Amino acid sequence: MPIYQSPVQDTLYLLNEVLGYPNHANLPGFADASPDVLEAILAEGAKLAENVMLPLNRIGDTEGCTRNDDGSVTTPKGFGQAYQQYREGGWMGLAAPAEYGGQGLPYAVHAAVGEYLSSANMALMMYPGLTQGAIAAIVAHGSEAQKQTFLPKMIDGGWTGTMNLTEPHCGTDLGLLRTKAVPNGDGTYRISGQKIFISAGEHDMSDNIVHLVLARIEGAPEGVKGISLFIVPKFKLDADGNPGERNGVSCGSIEEKMGIHGNATCVMNYDEAEGTLLGAENGGLKAMFVMMNEARLGVGLQGLSLSEVAYQNAVAYARERLQGRSLSGPKNPQGKADPIIVHPDIRRALMTMRAFNEAGRALVLWTALNSDIAHRSADEAERQAADDLLGLMTPVLKGVLTDKGFEHAVMAQQVFGGHGYIEEHGMSQFVRDARIAMIYEGANGIQALDLVGRKLALNGGRAVQAFFKEVGEFCEENRADETMAPFTKSIKKGLNDLQAATMWLMQNAMAKPDNAGAASTDYMHLFGLVVLGYLWGRMAKVSQEKLAEGAGDTAAFHEHKIVTARYFMERVMPETAAHLARISTGADTMMALPAEAF
Amino acid sequence: MPIYQSPVQDTLYLLNEVLGYPNHANLPGFADASPDVLEAILAEGAKLAENVMLPLNRIGDTEGCTRNDDGSVTTPKGFGQAYQQYREGGWMGLAAPAEYGGQGLPYAVHAAVGEYLSSANMALMMYPGLTQGAIAAIVAHGSEAQKQTFLPKMIDGGWTGTMNLTEPHCGTDLGLLRTKAVPNGDGTYRISGQKIFISAGEHDMSDNIVHLVLARIEGAPEGVKGISLFIVPKFKLDADGNPGERNGVSCGSIEEKMGIHGNATCVMNYDEAEGTLLGAENGGLKAMFVMMNEARLGVGLQGLSLSEVAYQNAVAYARERLQGRSLSGPKNPQGKADPIIVHPDIRRALMTMRAFNEAGRALVLWTALNSDIAHRSADEAERQAADDLLGLMTPVLKGVLTDKGFEHAVMAQQVFGGHGYIEEHGMSQFVRDARIAMIYEGANGIQALDLVGRKLALNGGRAVQAFFKEVGEFCEENRADETMAPFTKSIKKGLNDLQAATMWLMQNAMAKPDNAGAASTDYMHLFGLVVLGYLWGRMAKVSQEKLAEGAGDTAAFHEHKIVTARYFMERVMPETAAHLARISTGADTMMALPAEAF
Repeated sequence: MPIYQSPVQDTLYLLNEVLGYPNHANLPGFADASPDVLEAILAEGAKLAENVMLPLNRIGDTEGCTRNDDGSVTTPKGFGQAYQQYREGGWMGLAAPAEYGGQGLPYAVHAAVGEYLSSANMALMMYPGLTQGAIAAIVAHGSEAQKQTFLPKMIDGGWTGTMNLTEPHCGTDLGLLRTKAVPNGDGTYRISGQKIFISAGEHDMSDNIVHLVLARIEGAPEGVKGISLFIVPKFKLDADGNPGERNGVSCGSIEEKMGIHGNATCVMNYDEAEGTLLGAENGGLKAMFVMMNEARLGVGLQGLSLSEVAYQNAVAYARERLQGRSLSGPKNPQGKADPIIVHPDIRRALMTMRAFNEAGRALVLWTALNSDIAHRSADEAERQAADDLLGLMTPVLKGVLTDKGFEHAVMAQQVFGGHGYIEEHGMSQFVRDARIAMIYEGANGIQALDLVGRKLALNGGRAVQAFFKEVGEFCEENRADETMAPFTKSIKKGLNDLQAATMWLMQNAMAKPDNAGAASTDYMHLFGLVVLGYLWGRMAKVSQEKLAEGAGDTAAFHEHKIVTARYFMERVMPETAAHLARISTGADTMMALPAEAF
Repeated sequence: MPIYQSPVQDTLYLLNEVLGYPNHANLPGFADASPDVLEAILAEGAKLAENVMLPLNRIGDTEGCTRNDDGSVTTPKGFGQAYQQYREGGWMGLAAPAEYGGQGLPYAVHAAVGEYLSSANMALMMYPGLTQGAIAAIVAHGSEAQKQTFLPKMIDGGWTGTMNLTEPHCGTDLGLLRTKAVPNGDGTYRISGQKIFISAGEHDMSDNIVHLVLARIEGAPEGVKGISLFIVPKFKLDADGNPGERNGVSCGSIEEKMGIHGNATCVMNYDEAEGTLLGAENGGLKAMFVMMNEARLGVGLQGLSLSEVAYQNAVAYARERLQGRSLSGPKNPQGKADPIIVHPDIRRALMTMRAFNEAGRALVLWTALNSDIAHRSADEAERQAADDLLGLMTPVLKGVLTDKGFEHAVMAQQVFGGHGYIEEHGMSQFVRDARIAMIYEGANGIQALDLVGRKLALNGGRAVQAFFKEVGEFCEENRADETMAPFTKSIKKGLNDLQAATMWLMQNAMAKPDNAGAASTDYMHLFGLVVLGYLWGRMAKVSQEKLAEGAGDTAAFHEHKIVTARYFMERVMPETAAHLARISTGADTMMALPAEAF
């Protein structure tokens, strides 16, 4: 049975001491989650994760979901009750607008707790997770009537939501989609078509399911310009706004997947289902992107969550499993062997995961905090700067945290040796679950293209220049500080590589766009290393200061931070040079073979 | 349904044109597999893989193996018949000694065909695979009576074999094992204990199962010095040497695993089972290592096999799946979208896998050929040089090919997007199956330690010095050749990094062995990059020469080799510097945290 303990102390350190959460008390909602309230919320979230969600994680994997003959779907035993506890705790509406029943607290708090919950049970948390995205889309694009109709029920958790984009022949290229919408003349539409890979598409945990569906209105232009977004509830609403007659949407089958078995991934069939337009006619892609951006942060978070829980289990095993002797002499001389945590190669795995997790958590919270500022600040300049950063970090966070999250789940599994390969210890599940995060909400190759092809050049490169400036200034400001030198030197080297790669793109990708595509994945990871390295620099700075002040009880905590920061600089940052070297070779060799030659 | 086509042309190119297979016609068995016969054997092996093994691969995964109430095990439908075809084709004895019924052909030929068969159905091929290892151990350490009793039946495929090492509390550290052997006084022993993770431990495909079992003879010294190896047949043999009474060994349960479901991975219970000593009393580890080394090559091969079949399926999908437009203008203007193979990031994945597979195949065949020379040459110096190389390459081949094999199975799955995550296309199976190869026959961390802690220093570093010399001379000899410059420059750079890392180890690991452990995995991968880079250099050289001579029909083949070699130099080799940088930081930071701090 896997173990898990929510890293509450680390979250508090990051928010309060590193990222300046307390400085934003003036933003709406922040006063309601002052540092002491924040701590109480995190502690409650931790309890829910550890006591309610975690015990159901293996059950979800082994039981999976069942589609019954009548098209209904049964979720794994206990999922419904656990969801009810989530709902009753008010977690769905934590950061949702107060005017529709939410608590209006910071998104950063929501993200912090979200990490714990997804570590404990990713598949279960996808049910509310998709709902959060649907809420965000309705908040951003719904008419007042739609908001009044749907938001209170969804924010209360009584109704859940879904995103319906993918069709059998199109995922990334939504311009090809065929699901059609025919106007009824009364403001409603009849939606027909098939959607696949619909997470939480059908289940037994809520009174209604609010499907947000991309479709093409009859006669609309071809391609992405002719796509509209619709709200299609599983049950049509009666005059009082309560679930009434069944709508023309049903689950055709459940996909057999590699992992996240606890989540019902459905083929959804729309047969003249009644829906209403969400946002503008033919403006579906724009409306969908509100969901998508929210979802991408949520998926990046899953990468971190799985890396963290896999790490914790590897640590526990490495402390217990006795095998071999330390190369520097027995550490457990009274036993027949030493615990494997004494072996450097095991340490390498543990330190690599740890160094990533702590910086990954910083990245998630930093981005979430910027999302709050972007949405809530009264100061336009501050709002814009935060929004720039949010847009820039979204693909990096999604792509890098999920690629690395999977890699680290595999690394943690390796610590278990053969015991990691059998299902009993749950390590295989972490790997199988983590795998999807690299794919859905835009496969990581698409994230890389979004970064290189869109985000870099946006507003004349304003966002990326601001980020480079911030990192450069951090290095400059701390140049004289000897204790910071090992960090700033390494961050500066990474920044130089990233700037060189950016320059290379500017010089080589305009005339030949394949050079951008050929560089994209390496560029995204290079970017990620610099971001995580920079955040380690900030953590090292704070912890050095705390130690200098005399950290008391927390001295060990801060000392360990500094060791881990150093590990990141020594062992992870050297990869920036390899990424730059690869990027600089361009697309020519990569594209040289004819397709038939493969 | 996954596709697969055996890369026969590539195998022939490597053996005949690159690795000098025809020059060894003087070695025993090689004359019987002259280049034309070789081609016929490969073609037959390809047919068996594609027509018989491949169609059962998904079935094996979905059906798995069943332990019945009487302890017998039922393998997936069709596995028994497929194994019979393998057996009747004489594949089990292909490279086994003629005096016991084998064909005595080169091990290199066996390895070449082995790649195809494991690509087509890894789980099925493990049944004969384990038998090969058991045959090798009996050939090396059996008494003449044991050889006469067991080898003909095993080489004929009528009996299969297993390796029984792991116990619940020990895998890597065999010194801890508890299974005990009590002498009966008549030369036989009663073996009692429990073994876990026993591949092909019980099944319905052969008339007898020959278990090779590590156990401790009563009163033997503690630790690895007191371990002996035993032959324990499932059925005791009657006076005629035929299977008679059931022995005291049975399958307690089948493990639920992440993959290779078609193989029965058993918990084996020994309850006073009758066995005979194989090799010397307390010399079990040495005898087991004969099997182990053979098995490690076989497992490295599985890494290549899975990478190759996953690659082929990704290629097929990338050619068919229409999604988006090429960044350099439509390539399929009459269609609604271009095939995704036009996108550079998809190319990056395909070229990375291809560049690895072709060099990985070269490494496997080069090592196998050296195994033949080491075992069959009449020239002592030649034999020793080949044996040095074999010993040096075994951990590199196992560790690197399986780490990369898994990574590439994941990469191929990613090409499929969401369709890769559902089981239907078989990509998930490749990932799940490939995962075990990083673990069994010595987890890859152990391979890295074997390389750094044992193989490097063996005989005063003779093997590694000879390898460095060979690679250095290759670069030197081709220095004047301008067409070779892009390759030799990159190989030389890699070699310099590897030599610097080796020097660092010599200077820093003697006094502080943790520095060796901290460097080991990076060192193994650095070594692998240089080996694969060197083999790409040799392939580029041959293909350049062929093109200069006018290659006719095969011109495209050789041109593609050169492009792929260039890709490897540009995109893969830059990693050597990152490995060196990490190695040079030593163990201090990695080991700094107390175990409780994790």
